[in-house]
Amino acid sequence: MRTPQRFALLGCGFIGQVHAANLAAHPDIVLARVCDIDIARAEEVARRYGAQVASVSEALASDAIDAVLIASATPTHATLLEQAVKAGKAVYCEKPIDLSLSRACEVVANLTPLQVSVTVGFNRRFDRSHQQLKAQLEQGVIGRPELIQMVCRASQRPPLSYLQTSGGQMRDQAIHFFDLLRWLTGDEVVTVGALGAALAMPEIREFDVDTSVLIMRLQQGALAQLDNTRRTAYGYDERISVMGSDGMLVSESQAERGATLYQTHGITRPGLYADWFSRVQATYYSHLDAFVRHMRGEPVADLPGLIDGLRAQAIAEAAQRSLTLGEFTEVAWVTA
Amino acid sequence: MRTPQRFALLGCGFIGQVHAANLAAHPDIVLARVCDIDIARAEEVARRYGAQVASVSEALASDAIDAVLIASATPTHATLLEQAVKAGKAVYCEKPIDLSLSRACEVVANLTPLQVSVTVGFNRRFDRSHQQLKAQLEQGVIGRPELIQMVCRASQRPPLSYLQTSGGQMRDQAIHFFDLLRWLTGDEVVTVGALGAALAMPEIREFDVDTSVLIMRLQQGALAQLDNTRRTAYGYDERISVMGSDGMLVSESQAERGATLYQTHGITRPGLYADWFSRVQATYYSHLDAFVRHMRGEPVADLPGLIDGLRAQAIAEAAQRSLTLGEFTEVAWVTA
Amino acid sequence: MRTPQRFALLGCGFIGQVHAANLAAHPDIVLARVCDIDIARAEEVARRYGAQVASVSEALASDAIDAVLIASATPTHATLLEQAVKAGKAVYCEKPIDLSLSRACEVVANLTPLQVSVTVGFNRRFDRSHQQLKAQLEQGVIGRPELIQMVCRASQRPPLSYLQTSGGQMRDQAIHFFDLLRWLTGDEVVTVGALGAALAMPEIREFDVDTSVLIMRLQQGALAQLDNTRRTAYGYDERISVMGSDGMLVSESQAERGATLYQTHGITRPGLYADWFSRVQATYYSHLDAFVRHMRGEPVADLPGLIDGLRAQAIAEAAQRSLTLGEFTEVAWVTA
Amino acid sequence: MRTPQRFALLGCGFIGQVHAANLAAHPDIVLARVCDIDIARAEEVARRYGAQVASVSEALASDAIDAVLIASATPTHATLLEQAVKAGKAVYCEKPIDLSLSRACEVVANLTPLQVSVTVGFNRRFDRSHQQLKAQLEQGVIGRPELIQMVCRASQRPPLSYLQTSGGQMRDQAIHFFDLLRWLTGDEVVTVGALGAALAMPEIREFDVDTSVLIMRLQQGALAQLDNTRRTAYGYDERISVMGSDGMLVSESQAERGATLYQTHGITRPGLYADWFSRVQATYYSHLDAFVRHMRGEPVADLPGLIDGLRAQAIAEAAQRSLTLGEFTEVAWVTA
Repeated sequence: MRTPQRFALLGCGFIGQVHAANLAAHPDIVLARVCDIDIARAEEVARRYGAQVASVSEALASDAIDAVLIASATPTHATLLEQAVKAGKAVYCEKPIDLSLSRACEVVANLTPLQVSVTVGFNRRFDRSHQQLKAQLEQGVIGRPELIQMVCRASQRPPLSYLQTSGGQMRDQAIHFFDLLRWLTGDEVVTVGALGAALAMPEIREFDVDTSVLIMRLQQGALAQLDNTRRTAYGYDERISVMGSDGMLVSESQAERGATLYQTHGITRPGLYADWFSRVQATYYSHLDAFVRHMRGEPVADLPGLIDGLRAQAIAEAAQRSLTLGEFTEVAWVTA
Repeated sequence: MRTPQRFALLGCGFIGQVHAANLAAHPDIVLARVCDIDIARAEEVARRYGAQVASVSEALASDAIDAVLIASATPTHATLLEQAVKAGKAVYCEKPIDLSLSRACEVVANLTPLQVSVTVGFNRRFDRSHQQLKAQLEQGVIGRPELIQMVCRASQRPPLSYLQTSGGQMRDQAIHFFDLLRWLTGDEVVTVGALGAALAMPEIREFDVDTSVLIMRLQQGALAQLDNTRRTAYGYDERISVMGSDGMLVSESQAERGATLYQTHGITRPGLYADWFSRVQATYYSHLDAFVRHMRGEPVADLPGLIDGLRAQAIAEAAQRSLTLGEFTEVAWVTA
Repeated sequence: MRTPQRFALLGCGFIGQVHAANLAAHPDIVLARVCDIDIARAEEVARRYGAQVASVSEALASDAIDAVLIASATPTHATLLEQAVKAGKAVYCEKPIDLSLSRACEVVANLTPLQVSVTVGFNRRFDRSHQQLKAQLEQGVIGRPELIQMVCRASQRPPLSYLQTSGGQMRDQAIHFFDLLRWLTGDEVVTVGALGAALAMPEIREFDVDTSVLIMRLQQGALAQLDNTRRTAYGYDERISVMGSDGMLVSESQAERGATLYQTHGITRPGLYADWFSRVQATYYSHLDAFVRHMRGEPVADLPGLIDGLRAQAIAEAAQRSLTLGEFTEVAWVTA
Repeated sequence: MRTPQRFALLGCGFIGQVHAANLAAHPDIVLARVCDIDIARAEEVARRYGAQVASVSEALASDAIDAVLIASATPTHATLLEQAVKAGKAVYCEKPIDLSLSRACEVVANLTPLQVSVTVGFNRRFDRSHQQLKAQLEQGVIGRPELIQMVCRASQRPPLSYLQTSGGQMRDQAIHFFDLLRWLTGDEVVTVGALGAALAMPEIREFDVDTSVLIMRLQQGALAQLDNTRRTAYGYDERISVMGSDGMLVSESQAERGATLYQTHGITRPGLYADWFSRVQATYYSHLDAFVRHMRGEPVADLPGLIDGLRAQAIAEAAQRSLTLGEFTEVAWVTA
């Protein structure tokens, strides 16, 4: 029987509550402390899972805490991450480290020497289909990757208030796929071209796009495409295909269970998942599980670290510049 | 906030433990007592979910118990069911009521007047795809059902010891599909023809078959087919199609998540679920949820009752006779 | 450059005209004579393909004819077949040899010693998907066949007049699949059970069924199912699956080309082929091509011969008896 | 009975012979003259279809010719097109009009006033699946188009000699999809960004790419993507999806017929068509048929005309500049 890892959860909003359920369900984890600026919300989560409410400073100071999970508002990430690591806690930090790439670089430069277990919230690496794609790619079944096609189409418009502080479609949404591209290919993006428009939410036109198409060149020569939308009328559409010199691998969009209807004019299957969460939900638990194994010293190949957070963000910055300036843009080479 | 229903679980084998997890997870249920002839096993389950170990008689006598879930060995079902209902408990009873149809009829005749909430374990009615098929059928999208095709192919040979006491493929495996056929069509089977063989497990030849094909005629005129196997080399294969006068509805077999591989000689998707449990698992919770709603007096259309247990068993008896005698057989019309 | 085979076509109805187009298109065939009791119809076909109109006796007596294709009305098959073979012509004869099995046996017994190239019109053996299924089966990729499932659902009701002289659904429609079953497995059917009803065309109830389900046992132990309909509301549905000890092979129904529509409530692909002919059309040419290669002395594994005609018909007879009498029926072992 | 249109075929190479077969098969066309600089080749084609060999000047001067089909080498297109139209013949001209856009503009400017039936060889408009996509798009089933994704992946490397005179991947291969994009959306491309590499054929690096990714902005606001390859290891992959405000339409890649194999580790279907011709073949006949209907004065909505040839070529020019210069490029607005 293993000694469980004792976690403090910082932030109890939507995604914080998702993490709370997984922390409580994991056999090797104890959810010990719950923090939120809304005390009532913290208390409700604490009661549901038998944890204690604490302030952030109490949680970080406590010897009864091994690790923290940062799920608070984006502007708090960098500081909480620094404090937690300096307090000797392992950290699972929701992305991004900071909306400012230079501030994020500074954090990573400060923390890297401390050699603490840290992971950044690129949970899509733990999608079962994407993982099988990567495994087959690494076995060499399709040879050398040449052309990667990625689709990231969210089905339901986010609230305007969310978009106003999100940092834009590149930094908020596409960033997951910049990370997936690096992770799948083991390669780095060098050039980005992007076109975008506000087609589904014209009201954001002044500061953001909701539909965008991107092309990228990778260091070892492969080419890649990505498109992003903020709403579809047909469900959540996430797919990745990698064409290689010897074949193609595809991680498909996923349809709901249901009956298929055969009629004269067509054959109708159930539609795609209604929203992103239906597809992505299971990855949060798998990511958490990988992190706990990493904390125990097991080798965990897919765990996204601080430097992965920086690199994906650097691509997002370049994509944003390309969108804004209308020209191809080189990706800055960030190191800690 | 509702008053939760307090359950005693009778039997902690494989399927008993599946039920234990669901009883513990349901927000309107408290798993209060756990019973098993193997005390150590009962204690482990009780500890995991914060319940108390009890004997069956204690559990049935206790005022702190509203309902029992019978997951013990088949020969104990009939007696436990009678005792529990007479003790005023609601009962979720694993199928079959009894391997002897006449004994099962007797039990149902005794218990029906008592008007207690009872459900029999035909959990496949709660498969999401089958339910969507039924919903569209009832909306009339394919008109009147004419030809039903059902496939029930288990992937992994059960232990010989299990088969020796199972009552045979008709009573143990096909019975779920006799129930599904009645439930989907709202009709009754009148004639059965069956052929069978022991192809995958020749060692059972003397007393059972592992591969069988059946044809049936329903009262309102539709025809049906069913095939059953005890092992496949390609995963768990359960599918139902209903052809009607205006179209066809199909509840398909379900494939694992994973990547699709495109090569010169073919396109390879992940295979079917490795075993029956991967597909069926979610139905136990849904069935339990329906039962709890029924206990609270809500109308629950799909809940399989005692009479459903009898009728499916009567078809299984007829199918078994057809297999054995090599002739078409009429289904006895059993009533409580 | 090969010497072409000179054919006479006997019968210019719907299927005769299909054969005429193929005879004209084949590079190693010359369509030399066309015969029909409706002279105007014969003249039109002859003119279209540059052939001459002739009477049957002229065609059979002519030294300028190497082979005949019998596509005339069923009652004329047996006599024309005998005359043609005795005249030394190779014969492609549409099925059945004769609606009477004993008459058919007599014909085959008379003609077999003459060692002339003869093929019977089981063209579905030349369906590309069925052929690939057989090729993989013979390579052993799924091991020993155990459970065969066949679906034969015609989409458009035939005229009542056609059904009145067709010999019934078993002899007219199911017979193709009795042949496919023997051809795919290399095995023989020993027992048949059948249930049927007139659901789509109640007006035929007195003399035939339009919907039927069958189960069969094969000599080497495998079990098989077949269902037949005379109309569907969703297109032409022909599929075969063979489950073996090591996997399953499926020859699927075929959908029209077209666009797939993704909407909230479902994903709609184009429907199945509207009628049987769209799927089957290409097999007539392939069958003809195999026959011509056989005439030239090449080994042609899949060519259905006279004895194949008899054996499939014997299964149809047994199935018809099972339908009528409501009991399992043994298949007579017919030999030439 | 209609008066048939009498055609002269100019050029009997691979694609010329495809056209010859279709000209001969069409009921309203007579293939009257065949021209080729290789007289033996012309004679063989003429003999096969009962036509006469002629020189180009004889064919264009002859009163017995109504139309010409130009399938000769690209450098001859512009001059032959001018001569034929001035001789009063209707013209079906393989694309491109000329590799030089300014020369092509000149030709179109000269010929447009003459009001003769002319079509340019964008035969992919006649792909059955693409046409159904367009029909549903025009019916409004997915609302306003927002994001178009096109894949054009040829499976077999062309000969080096072909590539050296092809004008490059944009002008030779992608041009079909520039036309499809305009045709499907009824919109015009304004901006193009392209990245490319020679991954499959490094020997062409100095003058061309074999793998390319493009993004485009359309005038009415939609965004589009396209990728092109000169070889795949998994067959011919051509697909188009259009996401609109109310759903998505997809014209899929097409798989060979064959059996599906179910095994433990996966489900394998037949692969994609081995080469582009298997998919595209039928479109040549349909395009020819549309052209003949246009010659007879029927309204034919999808016929690609001279101006369509220019507009697609202008996009190709812009894409080529983007590839070469590494910057987004505006598309020139060409008019006749």
